[in-house]
Amino acid sequence: MSETFLLPEGHGLIRRANRADVPEIVRLLADDPLGQTREAFTDPLPESYYRAFEAIEADPNQFLAVVEQGGRVVGTFQLSFIPGLSRQGAWRAQLEAMRIEYSLRKQGLGQVVMEWAMEYAKARGCTLMQLTTDKTRKDAHRFYQRLGFISSHEGMKLKL
Amino acid sequence: MSETFLLPEGHGLIRRANRADVPEIVRLLADDPLGQTREAFTDPLPESYYRAFEAIEADPNQFLAVVEQGGRVVGTFQLSFIPGLSRQGAWRAQLEAMRIEYSLRKQGLGQVVMEWAMEYAKARGCTLMQLTTDKTRKDAHRFYQRLGFISSHEGMKLKL
Repeated sequence: MSETFLLPEGHGLIRRANRADVPEIVRLLADDPLGQTREAFTDPLPESYYRAFEAIEADPNQFLAVVEQGGRVVGTFQLSFIPGLSRQGAWRAQLEAMRIEYSLRKQGLGQVVMEWAMEYAKARGCTLMQLTTDKTRKDAHRFYQRLGFISSHEGMKLKL
Repeated sequence: MSETFLLPEGHGLIRRANRADVPEIVRLLADDPLGQTREAFTDPLPESYYRAFEAIEADPNQFLAVVEQGGRVVGTFQLSFIPGLSRQGAWRAQLEAMRIEYSLRKQGLGQVVMEWAMEYAKARGCTLMQLTTDKTRKDAHRFYQRLGFISSHEGMKLKL
């Protein structure tokens, strides 16, 4: 398995997700007040999840990660590396769909994972990391602010 | 020139940007209260802008557009098409670096351009469009809200 990264302090490892991880990732996305209304964690999973996984895997500017502890998937996030002319041609890393297993929260795992993601984005040449988080997720806001994120922007969405 | 799209009501056309457009795009990015502190609109332009253009052009999930009227570049935006597992494997279109020439604002051009972008994103299979806009850009918030965008998220940024 290529691209496996050991986390400090016994927090497990981070690696690029493979197809067999898709159900566990969807489980994490669905185990959430907002996610449970949007996802379909069924057996078998809707084929749309696998099509999305293939699109992610085919795009070298996407990094879908799982966090693993003792062989179990306990977290996930996706980084999108976006080239742009703004800010003198800066690459930005966008974080989407970050989830840590409920039972493991408040133990520092999220912070270690984010610190890893920030280092990885820097190593990929990004000078900015960005994310949007639902205005109802007050805990998440505090979590990201502690890491240095600034709530400088309105995050706007439109269903097409 | 491939991928040229005529806008309705004499608003000009939208086309994929080419390398020769880079200085005009940077001019638009720099002609802005926030952009003027971040961009370097010099002659010659910093090489970093051209490297960024090449990265955009090499990525089939990026669409950097210019809006043209009578042969002049009067607007620009970038769409990033992002595959993800969330929302049952939905593709999302992210809008970045949208600018319309100051002298042409409040004439409906921005709205026509956004309506085009929404149709294009739908045709690319996206079910969600998203953007972040600086909290100080109150006019932009109203503009996007009129188009149906919901300010549901905090947009957070971190310099790496």
